[in-house]
Amino acid sequence: MSALSFKAQLPADVRAAIRNGEWPKPTAGLAPGYVQVNFAILPARDAGDFHRFCQKNPKPCPLIAISEIGDPRIPQLGADLDIRTDTPRYRVFRDGKVIDEPFDIREYWRDDLVTFAIGCSFTFEHSLLESGIGIRHIEQNRNVPMYRTNIATDPAGKFHGPMVVSMRPLKAADAIRAIQITSRFPGVHGAPVHIGDPALIGIKDIAKPDYGDAVDIRDDELPVFWACGVTPQSVIVEAKPEFCITHAPGHMLITDLRNSDLSVI
Amino acid sequence: MSALSFKAQLPADVRAAIRNGEWPKPTAGLAPGYVQVNFAILPARDAGDFHRFCQKNPKPCPLIAISEIGDPRIPQLGADLDIRTDTPRYRVFRDGKVIDEPFDIREYWRDDLVTFAIGCSFTFEHSLLESGIGIRHIEQNRNVPMYRTNIATDPAGKFHGPMVVSMRPLKAADAIRAIQITSRFPGVHGAPVHIGDPALIGIKDIAKPDYGDAVDIRDDELPVFWACGVTPQSVIVEAKPEFCITHAPGHMLITDLRNSDLSVI
Repeated sequence: MSALSFKAQLPADVRAAIRNGEWPKPTAGLAPGYVQVNFAILPARDAGDFHRFCQKNPKPCPLIAISEIGDPRIPQLGADLDIRTDTPRYRVFRDGKVIDEPFDIREYWRDDLVTFAIGCSFTFEHSLLESGIGIRHIEQNRNVPMYRTNIATDPAGKFHGPMVVSMRPLKAADAIRAIQITSRFPGVHGAPVHIGDPALIGIKDIAKPDYGDAVDIRDDELPVFWACGVTPQSVIVEAKPEFCITHAPGHMLITDLRNSDLSVI
Repeated sequence: MSALSFKAQLPADVRAAIRNGEWPKPTAGLAPGYVQVNFAILPARDAGDFHRFCQKNPKPCPLIAISEIGDPRIPQLGADLDIRTDTPRYRVFRDGKVIDEPFDIREYWRDDLVTFAIGCSFTFEHSLLESGIGIRHIEQNRNVPMYRTNIATDPAGKFHGPMVVSMRPLKAADAIRAIQITSRFPGVHGAPVHIGDPALIGIKDIAKPDYGDAVDIRDDELPVFWACGVTPQSVIVEAKPEFCITHAPGHMLITDLRNSDLSVI
């Protein structure tokens, strides 16, 4: 099955193809118009703390859905959806260290695991592009630049650490429009957390992101910073839970939700 | 009648006091929660052009109401309202030059005059303050700083010229919140037109406003620029209509509209 035929398909069809091993690659551009999510899978003993962490930090950790304990399904995101098979690639952690990057996680599944589905900026980038606002990292065919900041998250149990932000350089008028557009999407990080001088949020060198790739910032542009879904992953890695599974970067879970479903106004 | 007793009054009571000559002063702080407007009064022969100018430039010239030709009333702003007497002070222009600053304009009234009531930033400043966002020029007890820009307005007939903007310095997080808040008020200039580097919109020296007073900008603040209701006055003065009347700066028309009536969401 080719990428083009995927693009004409509904999310359930794309998930089925991924489940069948036909798409072991990043999901950007698949099932356009539908929500793709970050996720983290944790044992029940750590899930309560992490759930509170998301509740207390909705900008970096906008919780879209949560599974029942031990249940690999998340029906509110797709009737057929199975978290063990429906993502192209995973990362399995023990004590905060990656031990495997498998294409499915059936062999790792346990009766005590809880899945947290967390909003992803793909959703608001779709709206920015539809509004004619260029996104530099897409134009330059790079990963979005991400930075650790000095903005503390609100800790919950073992989970704590600095907020990670993504950055998109925009002309002032586009930045203002982007603030309006992303304000409509609190479920996918919402409005920016900072605009302008990177040093004010503890970023020493904008040309050296902590994750992703640097992008060009032109003289007439402002860097605009959004809370980033890498924050929960960074926090989990630092908290070193006994066991954890996430998606591999860029290999997201595709849901039946439409991007517009996450718009509040 | 004292200022304090005014503040407890409804707009109609404040207008009545102004009509009776009891308040020949600026209107800031009167009838809190109610909309105060800029206005321009033009002969019918120029009114069509000016109406089109407002229509084409809604950010600097958000038209709240328009009178019938020759009618000094604007019932949609207040049943009792009489534009000839209900503003504390006026400016009368002939051929673009101020010829008088009277306390009422009954002697200047003509059967061909049309009144344009235009939104004023007092309305959104009220919402910013209610959200806990400090406004520097209020804190410093100065007039808001305003600047001519290199942003051209869209001309209509004889009316043309650069957009004038007002500036409020804000920390980034407050600037983002202010963009959200003022976006709800398209009837009073709406979202900012620029944020950050003043030179990008043709402002050479931020410390030297073209109108109003300079205010302090701190190291961790961005200048945020809104389209300003001085634009139509500046455009009118340059177009040199045969006759024109406006309010004197700061001496606004108080209406029965609530600030919240102008919020779209």
